[in-house]
Parts: sequence; structure tokens; C-alpha cells
Amino acid sequence: MANRTPQANQSWLPEANSPTVDFPLTHLPYGAFEHEGQQHLCTAIGDHLLDLYVCAASNLLPPTLIEACQAPTLNSLMSLGHRSWTLLRESLTALLHADVEPDRRQGVEGALHSIAGATLVRAVHVPNYTDFYASIHHATRVGQLFRPDQPLLPNYKHIPIGYHSRTSSIVSSGTPITRPVGQSRPIAAQEQPDFLPSNALDYELELALYIGEPSVLGNPVPISHAFHHLFGVSLLNDWSARDIQSWEYQPLGPFLAKNFATSVSAWVTPMAALAPFRVPAIPRSDADPRLLPYLHSTVDQQQGSLNVKLEVFISTETMRENKLTPFLLSESNAHDLYWTPAQLIAHHTSNGCNLQVGDVLATGTISGPTEASAGCLLELTRNGAQPILLPTGESRTFLADGDEIILRGSCEVPGSPRIGLGECRATILPARI
Amino acid sequence: MANRTPQANQSWLPEANSPTVDFPLTHLPYGAFEHEGQQHLCTAIGDHLLDLYVCAASNLLPPTLIEACQAPTLNSLMSLGHRSWTLLRESLTALLHADVEPDRRQGVEGALHSIAGATLVRAVHVPNYTDFYASIHHATRVGQLFRPDQPLLPNYKHIPIGYHSRTSSIVSSGTPITRPVGQSRPIAAQEQPDFLPSNALDYELELALYIGEPSVLGNPVPISHAFHHLFGVSLLNDWSARDIQSWEYQPLGPFLAKNFATSVSAWVTPMAALAPFRVPAIPRSDADPRLLPYLHSTVDQQQGSLNVKLEVFISTETMRENKLTPFLLSESNAHDLYWTPAQLIAHHTSNGCNLQVGDVLATGTISGPTEASAGCLLELTRNGAQPILLPTGESRTFLADGDEIILRGSCEVPGSPRIGLGECRATILPARI
Repeated sequence: MANRTPQANQSWLPEANSPTVDFPLTHLPYGAFEHEGQQHLCTAIGDHLLDLYVCAASNLLPPTLIEACQAPTLNSLMSLGHRSWTLLRESLTALLHADVEPDRRQGVEGALHSIAGATLVRAVHVPNYTDFYASIHHATRVGQLFRPDQPLLPNYKHIPIGYHSRTSSIVSSGTPITRPVGQSRPIAAQEQPDFLPSNALDYELELALYIGEPSVLGNPVPISHAFHHLFGVSLLNDWSARDIQSWEYQPLGPFLAKNFATSVSAWVTPMAALAPFRVPAIPRSDADPRLLPYLHSTVDQQQGSLNVKLEVFISTETMRENKLTPFLLSESNAHDLYWTPAQLIAHHTSNGCNLQVGDVLATGTISGPTEASAGCLLELTRNGAQPILLPTGESRTFLADGDEIILRGSCEVPGSPRIGLGECRATILPARI
Repeated sequence: MANRTPQANQSWLPEANSPTVDFPLTHLPYGAFEHEGQQHLCTAIGDHLLDLYVCAASNLLPPTLIEACQAPTLNSLMSLGHRSWTLLRESLTALLHADVEPDRRQGVEGALHSIAGATLVRAVHVPNYTDFYASIHHATRVGQLFRPDQPLLPNYKHIPIGYHSRTSSIVSSGTPITRPVGQSRPIAAQEQPDFLPSNALDYELELALYIGEPSVLGNPVPISHAFHHLFGVSLLNDWSARDIQSWEYQPLGPFLAKNFATSVSAWVTPMAALAPFRVPAIPRSDADPRLLPYLHSTVDQQQGSLNVKLEVFISTETMRENKLTPFLLSESNAHDLYWTPAQLIAHHTSNGCNLQVGDVLATGTISGPTEASAGCLLELTRNGAQPILLPTGESRTFLADGDEIILRGSCEVPGSPRIGLGECRATILPARI
């Protein structure tokens, strides 16, 4: 465990030492940006990004890492395994630390760019994308809307419910989202379904868990080793068209209601940076069923959950015209999830299904126990029955064209510098019809 | 349209001119095989494969195709588009035609290998895999088992139901399948679910439709152009653990019941080879709902369905010990599907979801109208209630360890040489527990 005195975490970039910065020296998330027509990997420090391609070319990084640091995506680094992840993180920490030698600091300065001026792009090639349903508060409140007599299905507390989602339509933060067109049947009695732009477009506040260490087809990952397979974490918005979903999802689950777009934030926070923010899993009550052994580990119960505070903001066109700051729709925290990341991995592989380098396991909507901590509009507005009033006098049941949704995440505990996950934002464009 | 007189389709390989061969000159499916530690693309003719890598190196193929023919997967060729697909097919047809020049024939002879002696591997990298539910006979019979009062859900005739499946666990024909372990709750009243090897392992007889021409995120593919996006077709077995499925699938659909393995056949039959076997879509009755315009095209209704005869065989350990030939479990035909390939593509992209080169759209279980034409054991044995008696005196409700399942497909119409899709086979290994 690194020394946590302030001096130990000081960077020679003064901005990185501010207590409110997202990217202090203890964070060092990975990303990618466009550089003269190429895609370069980078890390973030303060308000700057550090070009890993250039660092590798300038012999500022260990020789064994040069190829991975000059690749267009993080998948090469992920494939090198834990030792290399640690080596790169230590190397970057040393380069950006206040104690760095002056000549190395000069080399680093030549590889720094302002984040504000850069075009960030997706850093990870995602071969497979699974979306879970790990928030019991979300599952319960959604269930209350559609099955008031049995909000939580009998399997929920036994099995981490998940389904496969679509990788082709994962887009980076900032990419506009076109409102999808699709079939819906708003009135159950109507003969023909409508085929119209979605009238119930929603966001879902989630975390993306990136797999760094793959698993072999046929070989379940024991829960004791499961956390070890994680490379890092991003913010994820699983856009959802509720009207399309309710008409199409029986019997095989959501399809076109989800696969028109999924937004991910630019920065991948390595698990090493999250170490100070690991917390106990939420305690199971005596009334809860016993965990099956493949889902239980004492270490996981003690420190397998992540204390990541999450926020959703909306900025409407009218708000932007009036120069109003984005409006906070809700706050929640990933530590409220019923299932831990290790449980999701152990379950996913329990039948022998293999994980590949770069796979995303999304948590599902992260909602907390209170109404104000709901991670989507379906919950916040009770499926449109209770509109949200905005400071402009506007109201929302679901998203309007021009609305921008901004997800933010941060970790704060006494004794460790705060880190921020950056943001995942996108604006809704009108349907093309 | 090529001249269909027998002479026009004669190859200089006599075996390829037999009326019962799977791979006559009019077929020329694509595959890949292991060659001295590398993966080479190939086509099939008679009992032989033709090494495309070597053909390209020997200047037997047009210069614009050399790079794609020396790639390890078909994705490069797919990316080149229709003109290149046609050019390669015409070039290969000429090389293998009875009229080929002797020196070119000599070159080709040096690139031929016996299929029986080759190790065939997956020819396509599959970025995304979608599984549909396009057989109304399958949907109805499965529905009868679980919802006798409403076998077919209200959405079925309006919307091609589909869901995302898992690409990481797609394996080539011949790869053994390990019985998955998982949660199930055979008795609804039992408190704790079991965690055991699946007791209801099933196959599903399907076709894989390979996307060759991609589409752009946000841009629906009109149904009039949809068929054009297809590169070719394979056999696909979507292995399913029914006991795991029934416990996990609410509310988000099948997950671990499916993603432990999907088998695909080695050969990809190009759409050009299927041209003689395009038939009208099954007629909709007056009682059926009107198709929404995005799912309707007159051309699709007239010739958008594929006349592919399909068979499922089982070979148990006892059958193999007694040298008995595999036992025919059922026969069906892809022309019985309720939704055409073009409808699946138009629907999949109707919300703006993009298709990528190499994507698989599977049809879902292909069952016919009769009980004997059911494409899975769930239907054939009525969820295990009516065991199948085998010639050895053995019986099956679901699959036993050691069982081998063999899917076969073929196309036959008067006036065109028969073509066969080869086979998709795999043997069940005991669970690892």
C-alpha cells in the first residue's frame, strides 16, 4: 500500500494536486485521442493528457511496454497481463511525480496536451458486451411499475440476471444519439402496432467493467479469482427506448430498444486506482436466500464492492440558451448494487462461457434505495406518470430532442485523494424518418 | 443467369460432377483450414479443397483479390464488396471448369487437398451475433408447452423477435461441447435453486446468415436492399440448456442457457450459389396482420425465402460401438420460416443499429409445420414428456454425454445441380464439476 501522505502523491504539475481535480497522480486513467490522423493512447493528469505513444518513442517507458503503448487501443496492454499493468502504472507515476529527474520531466512535457483541446476516442475494442441488472433498487422499482403484486421476480436474489447487448453501436462520450424509430403498441387493445420515433427515450446510469484477463472456454472463473480479471472501469449510458422495449421484449428480452446506441466515457480508471475505494458488499438480510457457493467469497463480501458516487445531469436546449448549468436529476452509488463485480464474472463464466480481452460487463442501471437515487427516467417519473419539473419551467417524462445527458462519477474517502471518472455525455438528435 | 445445361457446369474434377456431391462447380463455398501453422482460406470442389492463399501466390487469381485471398479470415474479402465477390467466384469457376487451360489446371492441381485430411477452422471473424426466432412453428410449439392458452405472443406476427447472443463461444464444427453447469429450479416450490450439470441439454437447428456489406449507425437498411447485405449462409447449432433457461430468462431473456457454445459449419455458401434456390416467402393468411411497410417488399415476398432442406441426426456412443449409422431425428426446410432474411435485416437496422462485416444473424430454430419437422428436442419430446426411442433401444428426452449431433443442409430444384451445405457436428462431453 502506497504512503498516503500528501507529499507522496504530489505531481510536478500543480493542477494535478488540487483536491477537486478528477485526475490526480493517484488516478492515471487510460484513454485514446486523435493525433495527426492516428489514434494514440494516453493517460490523464490534471487538465492534461500524456501521449503514451510519444512517451514510448522517447524511451520514457520500459522497453517491454513500447509496443502496447504504441497500439491504437488498450487491448494490447490488457493482453500483457497484470505485471505489465503494474509496471506501466509505476512508470507513469514516476514520470509525473514531483521527484522526477529534470531531463525526464522535460521529455514528458513534450508529450502533454490540454484535454480540452483534444478529440478523445474509444480506447478499448470491445469484443463482447454483457449488460447485467445488478441493482436491486432498480429491479424493484421497475417491477413495481409493471408487476405491483410481485415487483421482484423469484430468481432475482439467487442469480445475477444479465443479457447480451450489442458491441457495434457502442460510441464514445460526445457522440450525438439519434432518436430511434421502432414498433410500439401504446394501447394494448390496438390492432396494429405503431412504427414511430420512440416517445419514451431514456438513459440508464451504469458502470462499464472492462475485462483485462481473459478466460478459457469451458473453464469457470472461481469467485476468489474473479476480481483479478478486471482491468478498469468507465461510465456507461445504456440508452433505452421504453415503448419499443415493452412491445418487443417477450419472450427473448430487449433488442432494438437498446442496440441503437450505448455511450461510454473516454477514460478507463484502472482497478489499481480504485483500490482505496473498495468497500464491503451490501449485507444480505437473514430473509435473503443463502448464496450458492460459486457466488460466495469472504474477501468479496468484505471488499468486493466499489464506492463510486454517480450523478446524472440534464441540459436542455432552453437551459443552454439561458446559460443555465446542467440540472442534477439524481445521485446514486455503485456500492448499493446487490451483486458485486466478482459475482458478475463468476456467474458469467459458471457455465464455461469465456471472457475476452476488452469485454464490457455493464452493471445495469445503478439506482439507490431512495426515489431521488433512481438511475433512469422510467423510475424517476414512474414511467412518465410524474413529470420532472426543470428550473426553466420545462418538464420531462422522457427525453426530448436536444436534451443532453451527462453522467459523472467520483470516489472520495478520508485519507486518499479524490478521483473523478470524468463524464459520459451525449445529446439527443431528432429521429430520421 | 448461367446456362444450366449439364456441360456448362462440368468441372475437370470428375467427382465434382456427381449429382449427389455437396460441392459441385455451381457451389464453391468458402472455408478455412490449417496449413503449416497458418490459416488459409479455401473453396470446396467435390471431395477437395482449393487453397486460395496458394492460388493467389501462383497468380491464378486477379491481382485485386490477392490480399483478401491471403488473409486468415473471409472478412477481408467481404469488405471488398459485391464486385470482388463476383470476380472471385467467376475466377474460381473458370479455374475449376472443364474448359480451363492445361497450364492453369496444373497450377490448380498443386493447390488441391483432400477435405477428409484437412483441419477445417472458422473462416469468419464474427463481431456480433444475433439470434432470431423466425420459425412460427417453433414459436407456436414452444409456446404450447409453457402457455397453452396463448401459445403465440401478441407481438409474434408483427415483429421479427430476436436477441443478442455471444460471439466469444462460437466454435467450429467438430469442436466437442462440454455440458454446462448452472442454476435451475426444477420444482417451482423449492426454496434454493440447484447448481448442477444441465439435465436438459438441447440442440437447435438453425441457419447462420453472414453479413458481407456493413451498414452505418443511424441508417436503417431499406428492405428492398436488405438481401444485398448478405454474403452467405452456414449451418448453426445454438446449443441450449432448457433447465437453466427456464430459471434465468425472466425478465431479460436467455443468457447462460445459450452462451456456453454455438457451433457453426465449416463452409460458407455464397448467396450467388443460392440464387436458384430462392423461393417465395410463406404466404400470409387474411387473418394475419398487415406487414408494416418497413418489413414489406414485393420482391422479398416473391423470392426472399431460401429453399434449404435441413436434417438433424444423432449418433450415440452405443450406436457408434455397434457401427450403426446416425439416426435421423427430424427434417425441416428454411422456406418454412415466417420471416425472410431480408425482413430480419430490415428489422435489425430499423432503429439505426449498424451491421458489421462478418456479423451473424441466425434464424432461430427452424421447425416445420409437422411434429416430425421440429428443430429441437424441446419440441420433439414435448419438454421431455415423450422420449424418443432410438434403434439401439436407447431413449432420449434431452442429450446424453457422448451423443453426437449432426446437422446437414442441401438445396435441390429441377434444372440446377444439387448443392450441400456440408455438416455441423459436435459431441457432448460430460460436465466439469
